[in-house]
Amino acid sequence: MIPRRKHNESSGSLPPPDDKHASNDYILSDSASRDRLCAALRRRFNRKTLHKRVPITAWLPQYNMEKAVGDLIAGITVGLTVIPQSLAYSNIAGLPPQHGLYGSFLGCFVYIVLGGCRAVPAGPTAIASLLTWQVAGGVVEKAVLLSFLAGIVKLLMGVLGLGFLVNFVSGPVSSGFTSAVALMIATSQVKDLFAITVTGDTFLQQWISIFRNLHSAALWDPVLGFVCIALLLLMRKIGMTKLGAKSESGPNTRQKVITKCMWLLGTCRNAIVVVATGVLGYWLVATYGHSPVRLMGVIPSGVPVPQLPPFSYVRADNTTADFVDMVSELGSGLLVIPLIVLLEDIAICKAFSDGRTIDATQEMIALGVAGIANSFMQAYPGGGSLARSVVCNGSGVKTTFNGLYTGLMVILALQFFTQYFEFIPKAALAAVIVSAILFMVEYNVIKPMWRAKKLDLIPGVGTFVLCLTLPIELGILTGVIVNIIFILYHAARPKFSVEMLKTEAGVEYLMITPDRCLMFPSVDYVRRLVIKFAASGSVPVVLECTHIYSADYTAAKSIEQLTADFHARRQPLYFYNVKPSVCSIFEAVAKPEHFVVFYEDEELDRLLAADDRLAPVKQPPPPHHA
Amino acid sequence: MIPRRKHNESSGSLPPPDDKHASNDYILSDSASRDRLCAALRRRFNRKTLHKRVPITAWLPQYNMEKAVGDLIAGITVGLTVIPQSLAYSNIAGLPPQHGLYGSFLGCFVYIVLGGCRAVPAGPTAIASLLTWQVAGGVVEKAVLLSFLAGIVKLLMGVLGLGFLVNFVSGPVSSGFTSAVALMIATSQVKDLFAITVTGDTFLQQWISIFRNLHSAALWDPVLGFVCIALLLLMRKIGMTKLGAKSESGPNTRQKVITKCMWLLGTCRNAIVVVATGVLGYWLVATYGHSPVRLMGVIPSGVPVPQLPPFSYVRADNTTADFVDMVSELGSGLLVIPLIVLLEDIAICKAFSDGRTIDATQEMIALGVAGIANSFMQAYPGGGSLARSVVCNGSGVKTTFNGLYTGLMVILALQFFTQYFEFIPKAALAAVIVSAILFMVEYNVIKPMWRAKKLDLIPGVGTFVLCLTLPIELGILTGVIVNIIFILYHAARPKFSVEMLKTEAGVEYLMITPDRCLMFPSVDYVRRLVIKFAASGSVPVVLECTHIYSADYTAAKSIEQLTADFHARRQPLYFYNVKPSVCSIFEAVAKPEHFVVFYEDEELDRLLAADDRLAPVKQPPPPHHA
Repeated sequence: MIPRRKHNESSGSLPPPDDKHASNDYILSDSASRDRLCAALRRRFNRKTLHKRVPITAWLPQYNMEKAVGDLIAGITVGLTVIPQSLAYSNIAGLPPQHGLYGSFLGCFVYIVLGGCRAVPAGPTAIASLLTWQVAGGVVEKAVLLSFLAGIVKLLMGVLGLGFLVNFVSGPVSSGFTSAVALMIATSQVKDLFAITVTGDTFLQQWISIFRNLHSAALWDPVLGFVCIALLLLMRKIGMTKLGAKSESGPNTRQKVITKCMWLLGTCRNAIVVVATGVLGYWLVATYGHSPVRLMGVIPSGVPVPQLPPFSYVRADNTTADFVDMVSELGSGLLVIPLIVLLEDIAICKAFSDGRTIDATQEMIALGVAGIANSFMQAYPGGGSLARSVVCNGSGVKTTFNGLYTGLMVILALQFFTQYFEFIPKAALAAVIVSAILFMVEYNVIKPMWRAKKLDLIPGVGTFVLCLTLPIELGILTGVIVNIIFILYHAARPKFSVEMLKTEAGVEYLMITPDRCLMFPSVDYVRRLVIKFAASGSVPVVLECTHIYSADYTAAKSIEQLTADFHARRQPLYFYNVKPSVCSIFEAVAKPEHFVVFYEDEELDRLLAADDRLAPVKQPPPPHHA
Repeated sequence: MIPRRKHNESSGSLPPPDDKHASNDYILSDSASRDRLCAALRRRFNRKTLHKRVPITAWLPQYNMEKAVGDLIAGITVGLTVIPQSLAYSNIAGLPPQHGLYGSFLGCFVYIVLGGCRAVPAGPTAIASLLTWQVAGGVVEKAVLLSFLAGIVKLLMGVLGLGFLVNFVSGPVSSGFTSAVALMIATSQVKDLFAITVTGDTFLQQWISIFRNLHSAALWDPVLGFVCIALLLLMRKIGMTKLGAKSESGPNTRQKVITKCMWLLGTCRNAIVVVATGVLGYWLVATYGHSPVRLMGVIPSGVPVPQLPPFSYVRADNTTADFVDMVSELGSGLLVIPLIVLLEDIAICKAFSDGRTIDATQEMIALGVAGIANSFMQAYPGGGSLARSVVCNGSGVKTTFNGLYTGLMVILALQFFTQYFEFIPKAALAAVIVSAILFMVEYNVIKPMWRAKKLDLIPGVGTFVLCLTLPIELGILTGVIVNIIFILYHAARPKFSVEMLKTEAGVEYLMITPDRCLMFPSVDYVRRLVIKFAASGSVPVVLECTHIYSADYTAAKSIEQLTADFHARRQPLYFYNVKPSVCSIFEAVAKPEHFVVFYEDEELDRLLAADDRLAPVKQPPPPHHA
C-alpha cells in the first residue's frame, strides 16, 4: 500500500534498510539534527551561536525606518498598558504599587538584546503576581529575592536544557490552572471593589468572608468600580469592532480611520480609565479636602537606585531572617514560579510565532537574565503577559526594540508622575484587573475538549477545582500527575487486533498485532493476552511486530518466557516484521531456536513446513487450573 | 505487503473498516474480553466465578490417588525445608524464632482453598522478614498487626483490581532490589556467624561495625558456621548433579536411583544441617554442661491459641501505643510489604506457570486472607518463597493440597519438637540463610541486560545501590520512578522518518512519519520538527499517521496550530492514513478547510491539483528571527 521509498539525505546516517528487513527503524531526528548542528558549529561557530543566543545581532543589521516606526508605536501603546497594569498587579502581589513599575523597564531592555519573540514585553503578570503573593506573603525583601533566585533558576533551566519540562503541562491542565488563577485574582480584587476587609487563604474561605463582610461595603467605591468595569468592557468591545469589514469592497478610508481610532480607544482603555479616575480623585481632594472613594496613597517618586537584592530581612516579630531562612521560606515557589512563568511565556510565543519554531532555551535565558536584572531594581517576578502581547502585536510591532520605548515611558512615569498616581482610586485599578482577568477563564475550551477527548476533561476540570481548593502549586502538580498516569496507562495497556488468516499454502494461523511498543508495564499484559488468544486453538501463532517501535529488557525476558512456553506446549510461534533494533534486544535474551523471525509472507509456509512442532497430534490447550 | 485480512470473530464488536479508511483501529482486547466475560457470567455465573475465586472447587473433583501421592511427597519435603527456614527467617525479622513457625501452617491451609498456583507454599520469606524488621523493628505486636493490615491491603488490592501496579516494577528494578536485599540479609547474619555485636542501620554502617568488632569474634561459632556453609553448598551441588544424563542411552536404573537420592540430599540439606548441629549442641551441653557455640535458647512449646492481633502495645519506655500510633509507626510499610510480597509471589507463579496465565487478582486475595489468618496465630508477614517453590515443584507437586502436609508437619514440630530446637547453634541457622541467600544476588542478569538494552542497567544498578544506601522502600521507589521517566521520555520524544517522494504525476512532496502516538508531552516537539523539516523547502508536506494510534486534546490543539501555520504560509499540509479515532479527535478542534486527510496514494495528486496554495510563486521559508 505504501510505496517503497527512497531515503532522503535528511534521514542522514542510517544505511538503507536491508532488503530482508522490510521494517526499517526510525531515525531519531533529535540526534540527527544535533549532528547537523555540530557540523554547522564547526563551520560557523561564532555567527550562528551569536545570532541564536544574542538575537539582537541577527535583526539589528537589517533594522530600518519602517521597522523603527512600527516599534515606536507599539512601544508607546504597550507603555500606556503596562503602567496601569503594574500599579494594579503589585496590589495582587500584596506589595507597594511602585514595585510593579520597578519591574517594567530594565527587564524590557534586557529582552531587547536577548529575547527571541518580538511580541513579549517583559513585566509584571497577573499569574506571577498571585504566585508571588502566595510565596512571599507581601514581604518586599522576599519578593525581590524571589525575582533574583527565580531568574537564576530560569537561567539554569535554559543552560541545562530543561525547557522540555513545560511540555508535561498539557493543554487541559494549563487551561484549568489559568482559569482557576483568573478566578482567584478576581476574588482578590473584591476587597478594593467594595472597600471591605477580606480574610482567608483559599478561594472558598475568601468568598465566605466576602459574603460576611458585604454589609459593611462602602457606597461610592463599588459604584465607581462597576462603572469603570462597564466602561472598560464597552471600550474593549468598541476596540474589537471593524467598520465596513462585511461590505464587499472592503472598508473605505473613512471607515479605516474610524476603525483605527476605535482600536486605539480599546487598546488604551486601561490608561484612559486610570487617568480619568485619577483626575476625578484629584479634583475631589482639591475641592472637598477628602475623597469619598479610597485612593492609592503616596507613591515614592524616582527611578530606584540599583542595589543588590536583599539577602536577609527583619520579620514582623523583629527577628532577622538570613539567606537560608528566606530560601526555605520561599520553598517550592523557587521552582513553581519559573515553570509557570515559562509556561505562560512559551504559550504567548507560540501564539505569535507566525509559524516559526520557538527556541524555549533562549526564552528561558532571556527571562532569567531579565528577572535577575529586575531584582536589582527591587522588582518582583514577572514575565510575558498575554494582554500586553495582544496589544503589542496589534500595534504593528516589528522587533523586540519596542521594549526601549516602553521602558523609557515607565522611567518617565516614575520620575515625573508618581505624585499624581496617589489620586487614582483603588476601585478603578480593581476594575482594570477584573475586566481583563475574566477573559482568562477558559470556559470555551470545554466544548472542543468534550468533542475531541472526554477523558481530557478529568485533568482539566480536576486542576481547576484543585487549584481553587488546595495550595495552587499542589493543584497544578496533581493535574500533571493525573495526566502522566494517562500516559502510563497507555504504555501499560496496548491494544490488539487478532485475526485468523491462511498462508498461501492454505495453513491456518493466528495473527496477533499489538499496536505499540513493548515496555515493562505492558509486557505481562501482552504475554497474558497472547497466551489467552493462542489457547483458543492449537494453530500456529504469528506475532506481528510492525508497530513495536521499541522494547526493553523486561520485554525481552517476557518474550523469552513466551517462546519457551510455546515451545514446551509444541505450538509454533513466529515473529513477523520485527524492527532490527527491537530484534537485537529480543535476541540478546531469548533462545535463538525458540525465537523465529520472518519478514516476507512467503517465508511463513517454509517455516511451517520445516517446523516439527506442527505434529499431526493437535494438543488441546492445558486447563487453566491443574 | 501485508495481505488484506478477514476479521475474525474474536475481534468482536468492531465493524469491518470502511474502505476509504484503510487504517483500522485496534480493538481494546481488555474491553472485548470484559464483554465476553459479562456474557459468560450471565450464562454460568455460579460455576465459573466459583472456580476462579475458590480454585479448590475446580481441582478437587478431579483429585485422584496419583495426585495425592505427588502432593504428599512434596508437602513433606517442603515441611523439612520450611521448619529450619522459619526459625532462621524470624531471626532476620528480629523476632523470637517460634513466630516464624506460627506463620507456616494456617496460611498454607488457606492457600489450599484459595491459591491458584500449586507450587507456592505460603510462609515466611527472606525479603518479607527483612522488611518486617525494618518496619516493625522487632516488636512482636507491631509485626503481627503488620501481618493483619498487610493482609487486608492485599485483599483490598485484589478486590479493587490494583494488581497491575506490580507491572510498574520492571525486570531491572526487581533484580536490583532482590540482589540488594540478599546482600543485606547476608550482612544481617554476620553477627551470628562470628558471634559479634553489629550496630548500624544501613549496609555501609553495618559493615563498618563488622570490621570494627571482628577482633572480638568467637572461635567456634565461625568455624561451625563456615563448615555448615561449605557442607550446604556441597549438598546443593550434589543435589543438582544428574548421573548418566550425558550418556546416549540416558541414565540406567541404578543411576536414576542414585540421582534421586542425591536430589533428596540436596533438597533436605537445610534440615540435615540443622538436625545434625542440633544433635551436636545437645551432646555438647549434655556432656560438658555448656556449649562453646551460641545456641538458640528456649522456644515456647505448642501451637498458639488463636487470638485477635494486638491493637495496642506497651513501648520500651512504658508508654502505651494505641492502634492509631501503631498504624502511623508502620507507615509506608503497610503499602510496601504487600506490594513486594506480591511482586515475589507473582514472579514465582510465572516461573512455575507452565505457560498458563496467572490470575494476579486471585493471588492477592489468597495471600491477603492467608496473611489475615496468620495474624491470628501471631505470625508476621510472609508469602511465597522461591526456594520452597523450587523444592515443591521438584518434588512432583500436583495441586495446592500439598500445603496440608507441610502445615501438619509444622504443627507437629511446634507441639513436640520445640524443646530440641533450643540446642540448634545460631551459627548453623545463619549458615542456612547465607548459603541460600547468596544465590539471590542476580549478577547473571547484567550480561543479557548489557546486550539487550544498556540503558536498562541504570534503573537496575541504580536500584541496587540505592536500596543498599537509602531506606529500602525509597530505593525501590526511586528505581521505579527512574524507569517511569524512561517511559515519559519515550512518550515525549517520538522518532521520525523524513523522505522526499514523488507522486505518480511527478510532484515532489515531503513525507514525515512519526513512529508513535501523539500525546501532550510530545506534541510541541512534533510541531517544531515538522515546521523545521518543512522549512527546508516549499514543497507540499504529508504527515503519515499510520503509527499514530492515539492522540489527545493537546495534540489536537497543536495540529490545529500547525495546519493554521501552514495555511498562513501557503504551504500545503495533508494527513495520510489517519485512524478514525484519531481523526475524530483532530477534527473536533482543527478547522476542516485546513485539516485534509487522504487514505489512497492516488488521492494526493487530485488534492495537489485542486490546492490553490500551490501557486507558481515559491515562497521562501520565513527567516527564524524577524
